[in-house]
Amino acid sequence: MIPSYAGLGNRLCGLLAQPSDAISGITETSVPAPSPTRETALASDRPGFRLVVTEPLLLDCGVSLGPYTIAYQTYGKLNAERSNAILICHALTGDQYVAEPHPMTGKPGWWETLVGPGKVLDTGRYFLICANVLGGCMGSTGPMEINPATGKPWGLSFPVITVADMVRAQKVLIDHLGIETLFCVTGGSMGGMQVLQWAASFPERVFAAVPIATAARHSAQNIAFHEVGRQAIMADPEWRGGNYLDSGRRPARGLAVARMAAHITYLSEQALHRKFGRSLQDRQGLTYGFDADFQVENYLRHQGISFVERFDANSYLYITRACDYFDLAAEHGGVLANAFRGTKTRFCSISFTSDWLYPTAENRAIVYALNAVAANVSFVEIETDKGHDAFLLEEPEFFATLRGFLDGCARHRGLKSE
Amino acid sequence: MIPSYAGLGNRLCGLLAQPSDAISGITETSVPAPSPTRETALASDRPGFRLVVTEPLLLDCGVSLGPYTIAYQTYGKLNAERSNAILICHALTGDQYVAEPHPMTGKPGWWETLVGPGKVLDTGRYFLICANVLGGCMGSTGPMEINPATGKPWGLSFPVITVADMVRAQKVLIDHLGIETLFCVTGGSMGGMQVLQWAASFPERVFAAVPIATAARHSAQNIAFHEVGRQAIMADPEWRGGNYLDSGRRPARGLAVARMAAHITYLSEQALHRKFGRSLQDRQGLTYGFDADFQVENYLRHQGISFVERFDANSYLYITRACDYFDLAAEHGGVLANAFRGTKTRFCSISFTSDWLYPTAENRAIVYALNAVAANVSFVEIETDKGHDAFLLEEPEFFATLRGFLDGCARHRGLKSE
Repeated sequence: MIPSYAGLGNRLCGLLAQPSDAISGITETSVPAPSPTRETALASDRPGFRLVVTEPLLLDCGVSLGPYTIAYQTYGKLNAERSNAILICHALTGDQYVAEPHPMTGKPGWWETLVGPGKVLDTGRYFLICANVLGGCMGSTGPMEINPATGKPWGLSFPVITVADMVRAQKVLIDHLGIETLFCVTGGSMGGMQVLQWAASFPERVFAAVPIATAARHSAQNIAFHEVGRQAIMADPEWRGGNYLDSGRRPARGLAVARMAAHITYLSEQALHRKFGRSLQDRQGLTYGFDADFQVENYLRHQGISFVERFDANSYLYITRACDYFDLAAEHGGVLANAFRGTKTRFCSISFTSDWLYPTAENRAIVYALNAVAANVSFVEIETDKGHDAFLLEEPEFFATLRGFLDGCARHRGLKSE
Repeated sequence: MIPSYAGLGNRLCGLLAQPSDAISGITETSVPAPSPTRETALASDRPGFRLVVTEPLLLDCGVSLGPYTIAYQTYGKLNAERSNAILICHALTGDQYVAEPHPMTGKPGWWETLVGPGKVLDTGRYFLICANVLGGCMGSTGPMEINPATGKPWGLSFPVITVADMVRAQKVLIDHLGIETLFCVTGGSMGGMQVLQWAASFPERVFAAVPIATAARHSAQNIAFHEVGRQAIMADPEWRGGNYLDSGRRPARGLAVARMAAHITYLSEQALHRKFGRSLQDRQGLTYGFDADFQVENYLRHQGISFVERFDANSYLYITRACDYFDLAAEHGGVLANAFRGTKTRFCSISFTSDWLYPTAENRAIVYALNAVAANVSFVEIETDKGHDAFLLEEPEFFATLRGFLDGCARHRGLKSE
């Protein structure tokens, strides 16, 4: 079953934050909700906030996008000094629902293992912000939303956005929230790319940065896997050149195949072997057919099917494209170190041994660049067989590393402990 | 453009080999061609031979398949003692055209680097045989062929075959050719699985065995990648539940996506980086669109498109399934060594450092099993960044290893050098 995404359409104007019925730590910066409209009814369905920005955002592709919406969520309270804010940047298919049930699937928030009272990202100590990326499909402006100029969904007429564009939009949100310096910016995978972009674009606004399981540029192999996913979506006749939103149908099969291919890259060979091996699915022997004989087949099919219930196919095209385009060195004369020259940000780079999507070598390249400009940087490679997905999972050494780093930074930042 | 596969239909009866206009080293075992029919016209289009077997083959799934055809090709001459025959087993999407232009694409044979006069697999010294696998689409019986019982293409009513079934059919061919003991059986990837199956099922028929870049069982990750490919094909509406052959259309888009995903697994991350990196395709800068900006995207799309010109989508389903089902230990009480107990075959196992599809660990597991039964086995891991595809490429150390092993075996076998 695919929910109607059209209900997310957003045509509010004016610069405003709209409080919801969810956890709120930022009522002081909120303005009163507008009179009930179709748009506000949506907001009451969903936890979190929406910031509608009228001043256009100049994108890397040259297009001025505006008005646009940033859907975001917060946890914890901003302190009086506004010095305890941590911006969490989500990954490709992530969203702003970091530490609460996903409003469409009901599943736990994607970083609930890390975020909460007394947890590593302690909601009793820090004010945590996560915004759905530009181009996304959980309320921020993206290809699923209505283009105000035409009254129809953007589809493929939505401008191609970059990781830098995502960060520019987040910066507008952080300005709006009245936060001069973020205590920390962190995230894994594409979230880590945003962390690096923040540190490069707005170094004075970032006290500490924790890029996790990421890279300063997308590799040929990563581009290749993304291209397979895009081709799977575009091969689905229901995709209709991106104009499927009015058809009442979705390119669900293509999107499911894209997700299946991508999902393999999130796990390690060892993890797949440990979890599934060659175990059969609810049967005693091979069936000599094309049903899911093996548990791993059943698992992958489930991953594909459940993904299409919560994600928009065009968004998948745009966000994978943004990852592929990411190449921080290219913006700085081909020398990654130049991206960080003069930085005062404290960095902690974290990789996982069995991550073959963003392997340790890619993370280490970031550390080398930071070393080259004498930046304050720690680097930890976590031993695990869980692959790229390890950044989303219970990994005691990872948690301890992040906690230790944040505690040290908090002391330097003069944050009171709870 | 997708060629008509229907022309390959084969309804000959009787046990016969039909010589073609191609290189022939086996006219002594051939019988005269039947009077011209639709079937024989095909053979004159294509180099190679067809063996039509009337006695049914009992498959692992329990079905008796027959009559069935084995399409094969040979290079070099069988010596008087019939002691110089090397059976080459092809990989998933390979075929019998090892050392001559492919009759559909015109591209060089897939192992022309290795097979030819004076080459490692020296056609002046050895008699080389390669048969299209059962379930394939280059003339051997498979889902594309006509089911004699219905007069229609088999499609998904074709029985699911296994690697052991492929080897059983090859054994019938080798019997027919009057070869008591194969001097060597070799092949890479799925070809290597057949080598292992030969050595396990018919040890007294195999003097030497060279499994290359392979595994004794398909891993969870390998099954997962195959399942993505199968789902991509089945998601294509043109697949029509496997009954597309009468429709005049083919699930070309799904098959292309399957090939793209698989192709990534054949290369290493380093090879992709070396070949393509983030280089752009015939353009100065990013286009901020979904065309193939990057060379690696263009390359992958080309791989997908060219594949559908020569391969049948249902065959892809069947042959990937056969790989997934392969688990040699499972046939022997869960102990791989039992598959080789008492073997007198000389083995040489070869792996490649950057092969992550059939990594060295999987190949070494075969060697450990052979060691456990005190078999005669050499093992070489070749240093290369070319990934799984290395077994198809010019790799001097690989070539030298294979040449040295074959020379030694030839001396023990009493083969005269040319």
